[in-house]
Amino acid sequence: MSTMNPMERYPSTRSLTRPPSTPSTALAEEPTGKGAKGRECSIHEALAAVIFMGQLFSLMPITGYGPASDPRTVTIRYRSVRFVYGMVTLFLMLSLVVMLCAYTVDQTSFGVQQASSLVYYVIIVFFMVELMLLARNWSHIMGRWYVDELPFRSEPYQPPAGRLPFHRKVHLIAFGVMFFAFLEDTLNFLSAYRLNELHIRYCPHRSGFWKNFFHREHPYVLRIIPYHAVLGWTIELTMRIAKFTWHYVDVFIICLSLGLQRRFVQFNERLERLDGQPQSQSVWRGLRLDFVRLSELVAFVDERFSKLILFSCANDMFFITVQLFNSFDLKPTTVTTVYFWYSLGFLICRCFLMLFVVSSVSRASERPLETLRRFPSSNWNLDLRRLCDAVATSENALSGKRFFFVRRPLILAMAGTIITYELVLLDQVKKIPDTTKDCTF
Amino acid sequence: MSTMNPMERYPSTRSLTRPPSTPSTALAEEPTGKGAKGRECSIHEALAAVIFMGQLFSLMPITGYGPASDPRTVTIRYRSVRFVYGMVTLFLMLSLVVMLCAYTVDQTSFGVQQASSLVYYVIIVFFMVELMLLARNWSHIMGRWYVDELPFRSEPYQPPAGRLPFHRKVHLIAFGVMFFAFLEDTLNFLSAYRLNELHIRYCPHRSGFWKNFFHREHPYVLRIIPYHAVLGWTIELTMRIAKFTWHYVDVFIICLSLGLQRRFVQFNERLERLDGQPQSQSVWRGLRLDFVRLSELVAFVDERFSKLILFSCANDMFFITVQLFNSFDLKPTTVTTVYFWYSLGFLICRCFLMLFVVSSVSRASERPLETLRRFPSSNWNLDLRRLCDAVATSENALSGKRFFFVRRPLILAMAGTIITYELVLLDQVKKIPDTTKDCTF
Amino acid sequence: MSTMNPMERYPSTRSLTRPPSTPSTALAEEPTGKGAKGRECSIHEALAAVIFMGQLFSLMPITGYGPASDPRTVTIRYRSVRFVYGMVTLFLMLSLVVMLCAYTVDQTSFGVQQASSLVYYVIIVFFMVELMLLARNWSHIMGRWYVDELPFRSEPYQPPAGRLPFHRKVHLIAFGVMFFAFLEDTLNFLSAYRLNELHIRYCPHRSGFWKNFFHREHPYVLRIIPYHAVLGWTIELTMRIAKFTWHYVDVFIICLSLGLQRRFVQFNERLERLDGQPQSQSVWRGLRLDFVRLSELVAFVDERFSKLILFSCANDMFFITVQLFNSFDLKPTTVTTVYFWYSLGFLICRCFLMLFVVSSVSRASERPLETLRRFPSSNWNLDLRRLCDAVATSENALSGKRFFFVRRPLILAMAGTIITYELVLLDQVKKIPDTTKDCTF
Amino acid sequence: MSTMNPMERYPSTRSLTRPPSTPSTALAEEPTGKGAKGRECSIHEALAAVIFMGQLFSLMPITGYGPASDPRTVTIRYRSVRFVYGMVTLFLMLSLVVMLCAYTVDQTSFGVQQASSLVYYVIIVFFMVELMLLARNWSHIMGRWYVDELPFRSEPYQPPAGRLPFHRKVHLIAFGVMFFAFLEDTLNFLSAYRLNELHIRYCPHRSGFWKNFFHREHPYVLRIIPYHAVLGWTIELTMRIAKFTWHYVDVFIICLSLGLQRRFVQFNERLERLDGQPQSQSVWRGLRLDFVRLSELVAFVDERFSKLILFSCANDMFFITVQLFNSFDLKPTTVTTVYFWYSLGFLICRCFLMLFVVSSVSRASERPLETLRRFPSSNWNLDLRRLCDAVATSENALSGKRFFFVRRPLILAMAGTIITYELVLLDQVKKIPDTTKDCTF
Repeated sequence: MSTMNPMERYPSTRSLTRPPSTPSTALAEEPTGKGAKGRECSIHEALAAVIFMGQLFSLMPITGYGPASDPRTVTIRYRSVRFVYGMVTLFLMLSLVVMLCAYTVDQTSFGVQQASSLVYYVIIVFFMVELMLLARNWSHIMGRWYVDELPFRSEPYQPPAGRLPFHRKVHLIAFGVMFFAFLEDTLNFLSAYRLNELHIRYCPHRSGFWKNFFHREHPYVLRIIPYHAVLGWTIELTMRIAKFTWHYVDVFIICLSLGLQRRFVQFNERLERLDGQPQSQSVWRGLRLDFVRLSELVAFVDERFSKLILFSCANDMFFITVQLFNSFDLKPTTVTTVYFWYSLGFLICRCFLMLFVVSSVSRASERPLETLRRFPSSNWNLDLRRLCDAVATSENALSGKRFFFVRRPLILAMAGTIITYELVLLDQVKKIPDTTKDCTF
Repeated sequence: MSTMNPMERYPSTRSLTRPPSTPSTALAEEPTGKGAKGRECSIHEALAAVIFMGQLFSLMPITGYGPASDPRTVTIRYRSVRFVYGMVTLFLMLSLVVMLCAYTVDQTSFGVQQASSLVYYVIIVFFMVELMLLARNWSHIMGRWYVDELPFRSEPYQPPAGRLPFHRKVHLIAFGVMFFAFLEDTLNFLSAYRLNELHIRYCPHRSGFWKNFFHREHPYVLRIIPYHAVLGWTIELTMRIAKFTWHYVDVFIICLSLGLQRRFVQFNERLERLDGQPQSQSVWRGLRLDFVRLSELVAFVDERFSKLILFSCANDMFFITVQLFNSFDLKPTTVTTVYFWYSLGFLICRCFLMLFVVSSVSRASERPLETLRRFPSSNWNLDLRRLCDAVATSENALSGKRFFFVRRPLILAMAGTIITYELVLLDQVKKIPDTTKDCTF
Repeated sequence: MSTMNPMERYPSTRSLTRPPSTPSTALAEEPTGKGAKGRECSIHEALAAVIFMGQLFSLMPITGYGPASDPRTVTIRYRSVRFVYGMVTLFLMLSLVVMLCAYTVDQTSFGVQQASSLVYYVIIVFFMVELMLLARNWSHIMGRWYVDELPFRSEPYQPPAGRLPFHRKVHLIAFGVMFFAFLEDTLNFLSAYRLNELHIRYCPHRSGFWKNFFHREHPYVLRIIPYHAVLGWTIELTMRIAKFTWHYVDVFIICLSLGLQRRFVQFNERLERLDGQPQSQSVWRGLRLDFVRLSELVAFVDERFSKLILFSCANDMFFITVQLFNSFDLKPTTVTTVYFWYSLGFLICRCFLMLFVVSSVSRASERPLETLRRFPSSNWNLDLRRLCDAVATSENALSGKRFFFVRRPLILAMAGTIITYELVLLDQVKKIPDTTKDCTF
Repeated sequence: MSTMNPMERYPSTRSLTRPPSTPSTALAEEPTGKGAKGRECSIHEALAAVIFMGQLFSLMPITGYGPASDPRTVTIRYRSVRFVYGMVTLFLMLSLVVMLCAYTVDQTSFGVQQASSLVYYVIIVFFMVELMLLARNWSHIMGRWYVDELPFRSEPYQPPAGRLPFHRKVHLIAFGVMFFAFLEDTLNFLSAYRLNELHIRYCPHRSGFWKNFFHREHPYVLRIIPYHAVLGWTIELTMRIAKFTWHYVDVFIICLSLGLQRRFVQFNERLERLDGQPQSQSVWRGLRLDFVRLSELVAFVDERFSKLILFSCANDMFFITVQLFNSFDLKPTTVTTVYFWYSLGFLICRCFLMLFVVSSVSRASERPLETLRRFPSSNWNLDLRRLCDAVATSENALSGKRFFFVRRPLILAMAGTIITYELVLLDQVKKIPDTTKDCTF
């Protein structure tokens, strides 16, 4: 017991080229996924397209993040177009927030509408800054993740052949959500357009269609800066770009969680392929170290992204409550009605999808415990026992700054809270008056 | 430790004829239930009558499910009367849902009544489809269950002689609940009949008793299709058949849970019959494997039926809240009053019974931990230890898609939530006007 | 490992005279409580006076329960005065419940006041019946308890000398609570007396002081049976006796919990007296078996009394909410005000005391885990390990039919629920009109 | 296994000079924090300045608490100025409470304002008495703590050099919070001053500025004692001193928690410095004993301070709810508005900081479990295993009298409860009328 086995030492996370834990003297031959040729792709590769999509909306201004690149070479270049684009958007948003604050303080009443506008802008700015900070540390984050998931990308963990490749799954979900977000944005514009038409018909302002449009959408800006078409379209465009940050953060969290969950699924699949056959101690040691490594990866990712998760959940809950509360208002046009219900449905689905995927990390990490019970007692050894203990006592779940852990029951708790708040709010806040025919601004 | 014991391998679930784990060299002779002649019946046999009952109401259109049949031969025949019957009912219900939706969208107000009508029909259709899908996989589900419970149907697990046989218990509860459901349906018809009488007396429609009846019960149909007696009675009959789906799903879940709970009870009873006497390691190994097998069966059943449990619980909670909320309305006739309170009481009892039985699976699976503590340390061995660990760390509970696990405290939580929602709703929604004397339709 | 040690077998619970687990070859001499002469008294002895008190209020009509008697000889004699007394009270209460139901159905309105009256009487009848059923099984319950606590009444578990003897503590708390209950009853009578005086002054009934008093207190009786002084006083007396059932059940649960908690405290104190010194395996075996025995005693007691705990908690919570809700009414006389606040305070204190004492069973049973960590690893053995496991995984808590376990956080949860319901109720129910000057009856 | 190792015995807590657990024959050389010269300071030393600050506000009247002193020599001298100062303040506050009670009983209405005033004074008196009682036992508390943290103050646990020294961190947080509290007090005075000016302008009392000021601030005093400038200023000063008790208790709890958390962090840092290298059993034994010692210290501190934590949390929650509720009132002057929002923000931040720091004790104590998984199985031994068990099963969290444990999710639960209460309260309580222009007193 006092002799040291150098093989067994917990491998340091500094070397990128750690060989996968190859069991030298397996008692029973380990079956593998049949004909799995294509190597399992890394999170670094899978995220590349998602990051590119983010850059279209001025987020994550990093370079060298391509699927073929080394994750350690990712950097943020302060003189690149991406960074300048990001900074300009951030600056414009900050100005808008300041103008909105000034406007809100000046108004006499402060209700749900005012609060939700403010929260909306502030949370977008917060997300922008947070993603900028993550971008700065991206090479460190991806470097660590890349090393930790390395064993899972080769032989004993190879997923079965028929499975949807990892990057496909990530792209499917990410682009799917963004497509619906784009649809929502289009409907939003159409609704605003139609409401403006209606407003012009009723009011004797005669200030031109777009000026009126802009007046209605961003009154806090026009209080300070005189109207100009360029200004109007710049602000409008910035706003629409910024709005995608909202959706993008949820998509981003979903992709990260898919990456973690995939590894736990692979781990369990390997265990199931072993099919209760006794294995040599070295195999168990390798399995145990791989599981511990995954646990630590979850803790690492949680540390870096849990602030984002916390605010994303709070944001989603707040806006679902507010939108449900608004659902009792009359909508002046059909497009507005369609937009409103589509927007609410999309918000709820997106939030549910995010929570569901994040909670599936926790679910996938519990599975091995059941599989491990099938191994015979004749194969019992210290590493198998420690593996069982590790699986049973680890908290492999992403969290919102550890105030809550995202597991399945959380979704129910959040739904219950939203319903309760909704019922309580229902008779308290007066109906917001229809502003279509309100001609004062 | 490196030699392989083929006996100990976790038995694959493919062979139907796995011999029960017979302890070859027991240290102390194992006492058995005295004079237990009749073999414990399988869930497949116990469910036969329940499935037949379902088929009366157009559900579970499978063939070859009789108690004497092989569970693997159960199939769904697309040309059988049962299947056509099920499909026609489903089609009629779908048409009704569509007509109801059209009717609801057209109405100006949307309140608790409209919402509850919609939910009522939609959930019935959902249950019908879900049961149809389960029917398609029934041979797979029952085949697996049959194999897994095989050891529990013979000697060392034989329940004591005086015990109510398993299939009797299932029939008693299932037919008991359905009898009360039938009573509820009768009262519902009587109440509608009397209300119609009252309505005719007050209103100058002169449209004939049954036309008026049908007008009052299904206004959304008559808006689209002109009245005809055959149509009226078809719809009315379909509705009453469909209504039993509601009750049937709860009964179905109860029966499945009884099947799982019974096995855990048998497991614990065998442990208690051992009475703290030391046993050979092979006995412990057999016990451990049987427990692990049961745990996996629970996980398997949960995977297949948890969607049903989730929606059944949500449905019950929603309608208890709505009915309690309606309890403050004035009822125009005595039969209506009796029907209303009977219906509410039945709903609460059925829901409580369902939750109680499902939660007793979890309770029964925890019992062995206490019994195992009585065995002396001189008999301690690896399999006993792993059995203790398995009992302590397994989550042997059915769940609602893992959003919640059905355990005893859940019942209290649900009751608390219903009371809270009730209190909050109380002063918010205006009283629904008495429609007896409302002559516009 | 295959040799059987007859000493170690889990002792059957049938023999009353099991010798306490005497460690024969202790490595370190076990220190004992200094000069502890008086033997620790059993729960059977401690409860004698409490049961006698109950019999004054027609409850627990058993004979042979004296402190010197054998717990197995306790019986219920159907021809004894106590039993007849109990039966008469129960019959009178049942009649009152029926009359009250008839009266309530007849009244047009059904609010919080009507509901609370009904619940009040029904729960008292339930408690009476439940205690009667417990009385029938008393010899069985006490017999088992007596055997299980036997080892704790002699040497190694002897509590330190200065400690308040067990029966003293039980008597102190039981009689203390009952004294305050008596005070409450007196105030209640005074308040009713003063209100009657006030009422007579305002109303022109001229029906005699006591007839008026009785009219006001029990209107539902007078609707059916004509007034007679004997009748009036009989009912009034029965009511006051029955009211003590309410308090008595809480006191009873407190006393039982004290009995369980005491044993866990003794267990931990013995461990602490060992002071981390290594002990022989036989000592650990004895300790382990004693702990397992205690765990099973808690499970046994919980099975028998958890229905009582469930309804007692529900009852207390309901009446605290109702009384708090009533606290906003104006009180017509000073005595009424004093009575009301005293009654509410007493109710809250009694409920808190009950929950606190019951939850301290759970708390006391967790303590040994911390103490066990102090023992050195050189003394580690299988029995010590199993003892650690048993302490860590046992659920030694009384419960309300397992819907909830009475632990400390439950008290907070109940307080939170009461406050929430209070706030929600606050603006919903209209003020109950002052009935002092309401002269119609 | 039967030989006794005297080294391994759990060290008694009586000797102050226990040598730190020096591993004699470490297999791998243990790396230490580089160049750490300054000895880690004890909680006794770190608290000295905080206690001195408390004494300025008449709290903790102990002597001999200086950083250089022996913690066992701390005493409370009944003839010292500090004690007399404390007693006088306490007496004055008690008189004020009595006068306030008398005043409140006399008033017709009892609403949120009256309740919050009463709670405010009563809780301050409670805190004063509680701190006085703690001061009496201070030498015992600090003596025990000093011994238990002794091993953590020298070599193997030495924190890395660059770290902020412990006493600095404590001072920074404590004085930081008190500075903001001082700011709040100043704003409070300014607001009262301005409101008084406004009041004098509107009302024809002509009673002099300060008399009017005093009348408005402490009407309950003037009802009993005629006004005199000395009296007025004495009361005003006492009140302001007493108010700091409120803030001080939170600060005090923060400092204690920092002390406990620091030790767990050091423990984990030492484990991380070992970097998964095998260690001799004696090292593991020492580590295990140190962890058990820390666990017991947490239990000891919790026993002594959990009453303070319970009431501090309840107090904070109550006043956050009340202040949020008050936020809908109109504020007559700008200073009042500024004061109000500053005060509310400060209250929320202070409460959050307190809960966050207290919960970080629990968080820090869980960390070692993850680190321990990195050690190889070849180094597995009984002490390492028991250490793992101890870390996994200990409840190293401070609590509110065990009604709740202060962990991260508690913060979320409290926030949710406050929001719920707020929403429910919102439409129930009428607006409190503006008293600036109310000239009757």
